[in-house]
Amino acid sequence: MARGGLYYGDYLQLERLLSAQTAESGKLGAAAHDELLFIIVHQAYELWFKQILFEMDAVQGIFSTDQVDDRDVGTAARLLGRIWEILKLGVHQLDVLETMTPLDFLDFRDHLVPASGFQSAQFRQIEVRLGLRRQDRINFEDKPFDARLQGADRDRVNHTEQASTLHDQVEAWLERTPFIEMGGFTFRESYRKVVTDMLAHDEETIRTNPLLQDAERELELTGLKRAQLKFDALFDESIHAAQREEGGWRLSWRALQAALFITLYRDEPALQVPFTLLSRLMDIDETLTIWRYRHSLMVQRMIGLKIGTGGSSGHQYLRRTAEQHRVFGDLFALSTFLIPRSALPPLPDAVRAEMGLTYSRKA
Amino acid sequence: MARGGLYYGDYLQLERLLSAQTAESGKLGAAAHDELLFIIVHQAYELWFKQILFEMDAVQGIFSTDQVDDRDVGTAARLLGRIWEILKLGVHQLDVLETMTPLDFLDFRDHLVPASGFQSAQFRQIEVRLGLRRQDRINFEDKPFDARLQGADRDRVNHTEQASTLHDQVEAWLERTPFIEMGGFTFRESYRKVVTDMLAHDEETIRTNPLLQDAERELELTGLKRAQLKFDALFDESIHAAQREEGGWRLSWRALQAALFITLYRDEPALQVPFTLLSRLMDIDETLTIWRYRHSLMVQRMIGLKIGTGGSSGHQYLRRTAEQHRVFGDLFALSTFLIPRSALPPLPDAVRAEMGLTYSRKA
Amino acid sequence: MARGGLYYGDYLQLERLLSAQTAESGKLGAAAHDELLFIIVHQAYELWFKQILFEMDAVQGIFSTDQVDDRDVGTAARLLGRIWEILKLGVHQLDVLETMTPLDFLDFRDHLVPASGFQSAQFRQIEVRLGLRRQDRINFEDKPFDARLQGADRDRVNHTEQASTLHDQVEAWLERTPFIEMGGFTFRESYRKVVTDMLAHDEETIRTNPLLQDAERELELTGLKRAQLKFDALFDESIHAAQREEGGWRLSWRALQAALFITLYRDEPALQVPFTLLSRLMDIDETLTIWRYRHSLMVQRMIGLKIGTGGSSGHQYLRRTAEQHRVFGDLFALSTFLIPRSALPPLPDAVRAEMGLTYSRKA
Amino acid sequence: MARGGLYYGDYLQLERLLSAQTAESGKLGAAAHDELLFIIVHQAYELWFKQILFEMDAVQGIFSTDQVDDRDVGTAARLLGRIWEILKLGVHQLDVLETMTPLDFLDFRDHLVPASGFQSAQFRQIEVRLGLRRQDRINFEDKPFDARLQGADRDRVNHTEQASTLHDQVEAWLERTPFIEMGGFTFRESYRKVVTDMLAHDEETIRTNPLLQDAERELELTGLKRAQLKFDALFDESIHAAQREEGGWRLSWRALQAALFITLYRDEPALQVPFTLLSRLMDIDETLTIWRYRHSLMVQRMIGLKIGTGGSSGHQYLRRTAEQHRVFGDLFALSTFLIPRSALPPLPDAVRAEMGLTYSRKA
Repeated sequence: MARGGLYYGDYLQLERLLSAQTAESGKLGAAAHDELLFIIVHQAYELWFKQILFEMDAVQGIFSTDQVDDRDVGTAARLLGRIWEILKLGVHQLDVLETMTPLDFLDFRDHLVPASGFQSAQFRQIEVRLGLRRQDRINFEDKPFDARLQGADRDRVNHTEQASTLHDQVEAWLERTPFIEMGGFTFRESYRKVVTDMLAHDEETIRTNPLLQDAERELELTGLKRAQLKFDALFDESIHAAQREEGGWRLSWRALQAALFITLYRDEPALQVPFTLLSRLMDIDETLTIWRYRHSLMVQRMIGLKIGTGGSSGHQYLRRTAEQHRVFGDLFALSTFLIPRSALPPLPDAVRAEMGLTYSRKA
Repeated sequence: MARGGLYYGDYLQLERLLSAQTAESGKLGAAAHDELLFIIVHQAYELWFKQILFEMDAVQGIFSTDQVDDRDVGTAARLLGRIWEILKLGVHQLDVLETMTPLDFLDFRDHLVPASGFQSAQFRQIEVRLGLRRQDRINFEDKPFDARLQGADRDRVNHTEQASTLHDQVEAWLERTPFIEMGGFTFRESYRKVVTDMLAHDEETIRTNPLLQDAERELELTGLKRAQLKFDALFDESIHAAQREEGGWRLSWRALQAALFITLYRDEPALQVPFTLLSRLMDIDETLTIWRYRHSLMVQRMIGLKIGTGGSSGHQYLRRTAEQHRVFGDLFALSTFLIPRSALPPLPDAVRAEMGLTYSRKA
Repeated sequence: MARGGLYYGDYLQLERLLSAQTAESGKLGAAAHDELLFIIVHQAYELWFKQILFEMDAVQGIFSTDQVDDRDVGTAARLLGRIWEILKLGVHQLDVLETMTPLDFLDFRDHLVPASGFQSAQFRQIEVRLGLRRQDRINFEDKPFDARLQGADRDRVNHTEQASTLHDQVEAWLERTPFIEMGGFTFRESYRKVVTDMLAHDEETIRTNPLLQDAERELELTGLKRAQLKFDALFDESIHAAQREEGGWRLSWRALQAALFITLYRDEPALQVPFTLLSRLMDIDETLTIWRYRHSLMVQRMIGLKIGTGGSSGHQYLRRTAEQHRVFGDLFALSTFLIPRSALPPLPDAVRAEMGLTYSRKA
Repeated sequence: MARGGLYYGDYLQLERLLSAQTAESGKLGAAAHDELLFIIVHQAYELWFKQILFEMDAVQGIFSTDQVDDRDVGTAARLLGRIWEILKLGVHQLDVLETMTPLDFLDFRDHLVPASGFQSAQFRQIEVRLGLRRQDRINFEDKPFDARLQGADRDRVNHTEQASTLHDQVEAWLERTPFIEMGGFTFRESYRKVVTDMLAHDEETIRTNPLLQDAERELELTGLKRAQLKFDALFDESIHAAQREEGGWRLSWRALQAALFITLYRDEPALQVPFTLLSRLMDIDETLTIWRYRHSLMVQRMIGLKIGTGGSSGHQYLRRTAEQHRVFGDLFALSTFLIPRSALPPLPDAVRAEMGLTYSRKA
């Protein structure tokens, strides 16, 4: 080991890190007190964005092959869990930024124009790599999302748009789930049968229920019809395709069946970690949505109303993206296809045996 | 002290408290495992709702008089801070409920029909007492909000609708703020002058800026015009009244001026605690909004999509209420009226002297 | 379904729940304002304790057999994760209780004597069932921990002491880990060889390092000797037994080896969920410790110093329990036995094959 | 506005910020995956430390004068509240770091030796400026706390030790509290009288209580004696000085009386914001303590036990600092001097009038 050895300040390059804060308001007079907080909050976010992208490199590396090693699925789930923890910290960070009042923000906000978070290349890369596509985006003030990025930042983000996304890689991995079609077993058909029987039984119950008035009976039958329609996209490929055309679904038909299968039979050893992985994707999607929403509330608190005609205000745009810019919405929509566990078709022994641990098979 | 003395279990009436959990799913067979979690989460919420209502009793008690004692304003701010902490805990509680998966919820959710949070009388009382009025509400499935409440619950909530709300009491208290019109000083006029001069100077700058193209100049003048319009409601009582008619404002014209005055001159000793109080009202409003939004995300995760015609789904209704059922939105909108601190009109010495601490005046 | 159907208030037994709060201070005069908060906080804790005990029933039910089904290990890990979330909420709850000042607590705290959290039967049951034994406990004021419990509460807790604890059930499950001794492979011996070689190499490096002064060399050799000693309990059953006698270890020798094995080879499919389960046990242990510590800080804030002779004060006792009443400390201490992954002995192919998923074995 | 205008990436100096992460483990081979997380976490901490020091500059600037403007006390309380929020975020950040397992840490931790948090100059500056003195510190491995700091870092910290600390500035401000000695009123004497009467009454009650056995009576009288002793430091300057000599108290006798006065009469307008300020100091002290404790738990989880003779391990040192390195402990100890509000001596009208708002005095 070298004399003196590694020094904390050098290791973390603190001289560089801690001299990277320059208040714009300080260039024309006394710096506004709260501008440093504004800078630090955003720099902290950018450090965490770098970390998220790094973990996504690892997760996407794992899913970049046609044969994902079972060992790596556990690692992927764990790293997605880390990304989730970072996003939760990111939501909490807004508590710190909200110690700044609108009046204090006004002391320096005009100095920042036209800079804004729209120019965060790393944030756009995270969105793109998760799976947010151009066609999914709401465009603020009718400009494409990368319009405000400059030079190398824009190139970097455009380049990212050419690469595979986590959404599509997970979709491909789901499509490769072996158990949904194995031997004579086809999960979809097995499930269709159970659902059909269940709905038929429900219809019988409604029709023959002596306690129901005609109007009530009609209402219940209508509700049942709606329930039946819900399952159509799952059982009928063309209906799924049609709904997908209209933006109703994003995952492929096969991937959807696999995701549902994993959700239903999550206790089988082969599916326990895959189920955790899907849960983490939903947690990430949801926490990013919560962050967007809280961010929009904060912008509204800072800027107030925008009275005028034409265009939506910044915070209204941000609020709409909370809803619209979700990537893994299909996993949430799977709940539509669930049936009570008691009605769940048991897996054929041969299939179930394939879904266990090797050691247990011997016993 | 009595022999034996007070016993923890008796003090907290644990025998009663801990025997109040009965799973519906357990009445027809084996109880679904996650039903107890569902019950406990909601019972914990109801305990906290009781606490919130109790603190609101105290705060509203303080504001129920025409002459709120300066000593009590501090207490009110502190208790509103406590309500805020409870609401933050309420948001965190959703993390615990989200350890329940949609599949597990399906094991017992049909047993709960038609019970739902719409029937939480305490939650409705909190909404009503904060200041949410019938006309502000979005009605789910076209039923009035109290339609699902039964008997004593409905009476209790209707009765609450007859009483003063925190919003209106705070509005009345704001209207009584003495400093905005004192001696020859009228804050509104003093402020109008500064704003007018500022906007006139901005217009001059735009018109004479040689670097601007005609199109750019027009755009900036339009933006300036919009900025001018923003202030109209503050300076012109009839415009405020008209916007209030359309639901743009809720606070009275005088209350709005007082709230702005407190926000601008919050460092003056007489306004420090009032500013904290207004901030706590905004924190409560915002946290309740965040809770509503997260709750809607969770319901969506549990139920999935509702495919069908007519009516909005439960989670869509909940999501809209996050936006629409805000009570103190006007305090957030005040940011519209702010001007940079450097342009702020200094208070006349006579007024400022009235806003200090007695002891300091002697010095 | 009955006419009207299930009603929220009846389902949650709100009449019962919300009439279970009686302030002691109110019996002798005007109730102290903050006493309701004190009651509600503790009642919320007791509701969550009930939930934790219910989840522990399920987890302990899973581990009560000699052949834990692989399917159930995933469920156990998930429910332990739920207990962890509840404990995190419990820590957050202290933020709400800390909105009560010491002066406000003094308004009613004398009315509560001698009741205290020492009399929470459910909390004691949680401790006992996790695995805290009488001999591990620090006794406050020299009384056994159950001395302050009365009647049925004490019986219930004593009865719980007769049953298996989660610690011991997990220990037994760890001892049954098949892979640590399989065919000609003994993990302990394989590991010993690698560690011995590694330490021998380190010793060689130190002895032959020309840059070291004699005093420095001696210091480094002493450090190495200490490192060697650390591993003794892992490789030598009698040394483990001796350290266990002195309270150094709690897990059996075999369970310790299994826990280390799982930690080192956690990526193997058969160990992914077991590793998550061990992690959750550590998370629970750590969060309970954090809660104890924060609770002690809060008691200190409320009561202040206890100046006097003899005995420790309440908050000092609580602070010591944070350290002493840990149950799964051995899992944390495993870090002592880790070696860099690069030095880790690869598993024999035959053993590794047994640790995979059945389906993957065919491919 | 300049052509192009301010750009987000330039404003936040992202090129500089995001190129400041270099893994040590990457210098000798493939970088350990988790080393980036380790770097990012610590860099985020250092950004927040810079922010805390900046806010302390402002707060200490406010308290650096003999006549703190009433307007500035509100600002100081608000900025201390911001520091508290940042510290809470700092505690949460440990959740992210704990997604790193001990095995993953082992992949690169040897590359970091001998760098450690002991070399964080900013953290030491925060400690020193809050008020932690050399004599208060526990020294790790018998080295003074600044021994591990190098060059400019050490100079900077030593220089900070020469400046006023927040503790001492607040102490001086407390000593200047006018109301505790005003006209013929001396708070200490007024309080002594009430406490003496109260204790005398308690003693009478014990002596004449027919229900008490002799042994019980003795026990209660001993407890009462202890209670009497508690107040000695408050009423007797020489006893306070003696206890201060032994490290029992840190605040001066006069400052202690003022802090108690503010705590008791916090509702008076002149004391509302000072009470908030003292509360924030306690919140900061407590949260820093919680952070130290959680950090020690995490280090223990990462490193395991340190078996050997001599010296304490890193995590044991960290755990002891949680207790020992508190700065505002006296404010917590004030609870010792509290008496029930009902027994509180009312302030003389003349004094109370001085503690109000000017405007209210006229009314």
